Amino acid sequence: MPVSQVRAIPITGLPEIVSGDDLGELIVGQSVANSEPVSDGDLIVVAQKIVSKSEGAVLSISQQDPTSEATKLADEIGKDARLVQIILDQSRRVVRAVPGVLIVETHHGFICANAGVDQSNIEDTDLVTTLPEDSDRSAQLIQEAVSDRTGCKIGVLVSDTFNRPWREGSINVAIGVAGFDPLHDLRGMIDDYDREMTTSVVSLADEVASAAQLVMGESGRVPAAIVRGVEWEPGDYAAGRLLRPAGRDLFR
Amino acid sequence: MPVSQVRAIPITGLPEIVSGDDLGELIVGQSVANSEPVSDGDLIVVAQKIVSKSEGAVLSISQQDPTSEATKLADEIGKDARLVQIILDQSRRVVRAVPGVLIVETHHGFICANAGVDQSNIEDTDLVTTLPEDSDRSAQLIQEAVSDRTGCKIGVLVSDTFNRPWREGSINVAIGVAGFDPLHDLRGMIDDYDREMTTSVVSLADEVASAAQLVMGESGRVPAAIVRGVEWEPGDYAAGRLLRPAGRDLFR
Repeated sequence: MPVSQVRAIPITGLPEIVSGDDLGELIVGQSVANSEPVSDGDLIVVAQKIVSKSEGAVLSISQQDPTSEATKLADEIGKDARLVQIILDQSRRVVRAVPGVLIVETHHGFICANAGVDQSNIEDTDLVTTLPEDSDRSAQLIQEAVSDRTGCKIGVLVSDTFNRPWREGSINVAIGVAGFDPLHDLRGMIDDYDREMTTSVVSLADEVASAAQLVMGESGRVPAAIVRGVEWEPGDYAAGRLLRPAGRDLFR
Repeated sequence: MPVSQVRAIPITGLPEIVSGDDLGELIVGQSVANSEPVSDGDLIVVAQKIVSKSEGAVLSISQQDPTSEATKLADEIGKDARLVQIILDQSRRVVRAVPGVLIVETHHGFICANAGVDQSNIEDTDLVTTLPEDSDRSAQLIQEAVSDRTGCKIGVLVSDTFNRPWREGSINVAIGVAGFDPLHDLRGMIDDYDREMTTSVVSLADEVASAAQLVMGESGRVPAAIVRGVEWEPGDYAAGRLLRPAGRDLFR
């Protein structure tokens, strides 16, 4: 099996995204405008921020009416009670509360800072974006829009940058997937000496998200990228497949 | 600032690595043979496995004489006591012991399964590779060898695939770096609306390792790759920079 190169291609020139925008249409248009049209086998990585904006997953801080629980927690960590209310509304449980930051498990099951509620790269300082309510559905809609317009067999990831235990620095990970298996299962494969592989399951989707981040950056200027040349298995999967059940999590 | 593409280029055709091999020389040779010679600005990712082999970081299971501590632990988790001895020798502490697996903190400070001791992709089933004793030094030697031969300004990462809390699937991360800052610090940068960025520090090295893994795979056949087109800051840094001090680890 020949090993091909993998390319991360930034989708530059996207307009400011507003509620109701068809991201699939915009991505296809810009990929053509940039002379790198979407092709068969591409994985398209789209930043959570523009997915949330396109879906209107935007809340006003000033319109929140915090509960006493939110107010108490906000006092403890020195954060705006209305913002804490928004974070709690997005969360299943609080994992850890420290000055300025709530580590929570979101309703989707993602463990991350402030439930992914984000004030950056949004014009009105009263507004925050929240994670898409169903980020797999978000990915699926983009995948269908791109496939309809191009006829190409592609996969889509919605990504966000998360911090993690033990290691410094955030990395970009997949919070929604459509059209491909986010895990690459090597169990049963043999190594070069005919022995079964021990490192068995690779998070293909998270590695693709990280590769995309190298061209997307954090400024918000490049909120999508094509990752081309990766081998993947088509199929209907959800990002929940990337969540390690607590009972199988040796690190907890 | 224009956003360029990023490419992950597999370094195919490397020979079976044995103790004493000059990896820098071999990588330069194969990159030329593959018509993708090392260029200014490249980050070269080298799998731990071949670094360990080249440094003779290989141990014989049968020659181990396990302590009573290792024997007791081996009984508990159903693992060969001699292998457990090797793992303990590589470790500062055991984080968790479960059937078949020891999660440890290595002497370097990495938290990973079985201290990175690996039986796959090595011909003699009595032998295991251990992580390089000083993986930054390993990276530095490769960087010097490549720079000397090519005159190019490059960075080098030694990588390994680690599992992690909360999320399924291993990802490739940097365990040794040379020549560049493994973190990309965005603190103080402003977003598109003139507000300071909140997500502040990105693990550039881990994202590069993940991008490289997309062409390196797990079979051992492609144990090195060039990642081209990434912007990075030159400098003398160590992979220890990627270790989050326990006191600052909100997730512990």
